[in-house]
Amino acid sequence: MPPRKPARSPIVILTDFGYRDHYAGVMKGVIAKIAPDASVIDLTHGIPPQSVTAGALALAQSQEYFPARSVFLAVVDPGVGTSRDAIALETRTGARFVGPDNGLLSLAATAGEIKRAVRLTSTRYRLPNLSPTFHGRDVFAPAAAHIWNGVPLTALGPELKSWHQLELPRPVESDSRLSGEVIYVDTYGNLVTNLDRETVARFAACFPTQKVSVRINRGAAIRIIDSYALAPKGAPLAIFGSFNLLEIALRDGNAAQHFDAKPGAGVILAVSARRK
Amino acid sequence: MPPRKPARSPIVILTDFGYRDHYAGVMKGVIAKIAPDASVIDLTHGIPPQSVTAGALALAQSQEYFPARSVFLAVVDPGVGTSRDAIALETRTGARFVGPDNGLLSLAATAGEIKRAVRLTSTRYRLPNLSPTFHGRDVFAPAAAHIWNGVPLTALGPELKSWHQLELPRPVESDSRLSGEVIYVDTYGNLVTNLDRETVARFAACFPTQKVSVRINRGAAIRIIDSYALAPKGAPLAIFGSFNLLEIALRDGNAAQHFDAKPGAGVILAVSARRK
Amino acid sequence: MPPRKPARSPIVILTDFGYRDHYAGVMKGVIAKIAPDASVIDLTHGIPPQSVTAGALALAQSQEYFPARSVFLAVVDPGVGTSRDAIALETRTGARFVGPDNGLLSLAATAGEIKRAVRLTSTRYRLPNLSPTFHGRDVFAPAAAHIWNGVPLTALGPELKSWHQLELPRPVESDSRLSGEVIYVDTYGNLVTNLDRETVARFAACFPTQKVSVRINRGAAIRIIDSYALAPKGAPLAIFGSFNLLEIALRDGNAAQHFDAKPGAGVILAVSARRK
Repeated sequence: MPPRKPARSPIVILTDFGYRDHYAGVMKGVIAKIAPDASVIDLTHGIPPQSVTAGALALAQSQEYFPARSVFLAVVDPGVGTSRDAIALETRTGARFVGPDNGLLSLAATAGEIKRAVRLTSTRYRLPNLSPTFHGRDVFAPAAAHIWNGVPLTALGPELKSWHQLELPRPVESDSRLSGEVIYVDTYGNLVTNLDRETVARFAACFPTQKVSVRINRGAAIRIIDSYALAPKGAPLAIFGSFNLLEIALRDGNAAQHFDAKPGAGVILAVSARRK
Repeated sequence: MPPRKPARSPIVILTDFGYRDHYAGVMKGVIAKIAPDASVIDLTHGIPPQSVTAGALALAQSQEYFPARSVFLAVVDPGVGTSRDAIALETRTGARFVGPDNGLLSLAATAGEIKRAVRLTSTRYRLPNLSPTFHGRDVFAPAAAHIWNGVPLTALGPELKSWHQLELPRPVESDSRLSGEVIYVDTYGNLVTNLDRETVARFAACFPTQKVSVRINRGAAIRIIDSYALAPKGAPLAIFGSFNLLEIALRDGNAAQHFDAKPGAGVILAVSARRK
Repeated sequence: MPPRKPARSPIVILTDFGYRDHYAGVMKGVIAKIAPDASVIDLTHGIPPQSVTAGALALAQSQEYFPARSVFLAVVDPGVGTSRDAIALETRTGARFVGPDNGLLSLAATAGEIKRAVRLTSTRYRLPNLSPTFHGRDVFAPAAAHIWNGVPLTALGPELKSWHQLELPRPVESDSRLSGEVIYVDTYGNLVTNLDRETVARFAACFPTQKVSVRINRGAAIRIIDSYALAPKGAPLAIFGSFNLLEIALRDGNAAQHFDAKPGAGVILAVSARRK
């Protein structure tokens, strides 16, 4: 084992394994054996099963809040046992990402500018017996732990020049409307859209004398407000959430149920004459 | 940053964020950045959404089991974005509590006798950009981490003379009955009441020759016993649970389903002639 | 307290307490008070309520992935408050197990060869007030923490010569078929059977010219394959899972729902003429 760096950054785990089985726990056992001093943080194991997009978003929205040299270990892996690669990425900001090459790491890693990418092929840094169904335990957890220990990425396998980049749906702008969609529904039923604060501000700036409002699934117009407190109880509202994306919510209620909306539901920003 | 105290007490987190999203995980990232040596314990993130009472009870029942100088970080915050204060409390026993001023902290903090209370207003000890929807990340987690690092409460904001005190429903005593209610339903469907061991003992002492039994929702009389094992399988029973409150349970079953009972359901203690 | 060993192995917790209540969190508080330097890993708290078999399997499948001298603290305890013993076991490989004597520890501990077993009777190593309903907090967590601190098992109570051994259903072999059953259903709906790789290989070796296939609940024949990728989307498949047990799965689907199958469902391996 190479000399241990005086690193105090954590290993941060995200999976879709849920909380019923021992699968996520076993990964932590594998880490404890290889890197007993690593502090391990569960980001979440509640990503909807096999939802690579939800996992990629959660990772991208979280990473800046963690110490710079954190090792992110992410496993949402519908292609386990297929020919999809196992990879590790390193960013200019020092973060390291380990997981399957299916786009899961790409939103977060790109945000930090990818400096180096490798395929995890070295048998030295995985468990001796590779199961066909649980690379989280056999490949990804060992790789993350060895990286935390200071093993350089290049020791884990050959450098990669390209990897799977997840493309989020982009808002489409036309004459007087901006069309987006729901990309994530959270525990509270809040509908997170792909309309970020900058895009909406740029759109609204084109219509300085008019009022912008939001519609979902062709429903009634919803106002964009700055605080839940400005909406009456039970009323729909639109607000820029904690990750600077426009969210549609229900004050003290569940917007996903109210609007019967899922990821993919259409969200339209439009302008109308400002009432005086 | 002030010099770090040789503290080994943990930061203990309780929220209603659930386990699906990355929200609780992100708070742990914020803590890891500010207080990388803190050990962090998840008390639970499964408090029913926006249930301040359930959160306050869980915190009050848990705190004595943690090291004396633990920092409790609690976020059940239906009023986020309104004018409710963010506060920190310190007790004579050395525990620190951080959270919204909506009563969530009050049961636990009062139990330890509150020595000092402050409003969290200093911008130095929060994240630079305050979102309107996620003060757990932007205000409370940073405050808890700085307090763990040794920042005195008084540096975080002005002292408070009063704060929101949660009032649990109190049992009502009449001639020959003690009326309480269900205040919490746990995972197993056990119905936790507001009837504590002392109140029940005092009531029973008034009727030394009679037998005390319990009714819920005007149902049949249920015996108070000392061990699950004394009830036949599937039978209702009443028992003083692990936090000294009377609980109504079903041996190997779910009392909440059996009695169709929720928080607020009436629970009556009454006396009857003791059979010989 | 005895001198602390330079141990870095974790305390690993498995319960059926779920994630809604503060029960598992309180156990971690008790540990933090007694063994503040112990690193604590949640294996899972999602064991189906009171399912000793599911807990025993999860523990048995996990233990080899943890550091050798880990202390496993397991609480699935339908008999709490009855006369069932509280025990601790130590294996030749150095692992320690703490929990109720109902078979929960037996599969994992037996795998490591049990060297010593004790009943947890010493009042010195439990909390002062024993509740009738929460020995996880009052008995098992303190015992695990003291053991982690270096207290020898024999200080915790008298040695035991026998303990409850869980018997998993064994596959039954007849002329040309091997009959097993589902013993666990995981989060994804994968049906884990009691047919391990060796037993199946031995059975198949008796019929070198024939093809082995699997049926569940008397349904159609399912092929055993080496990788999910070899099955078309939505198709049933059988595969040796990550713990070397035959699993029946649905490619990108839920086999438990598809086959309406639970633990106990019959699984038959049979041979047929190999098609050329």
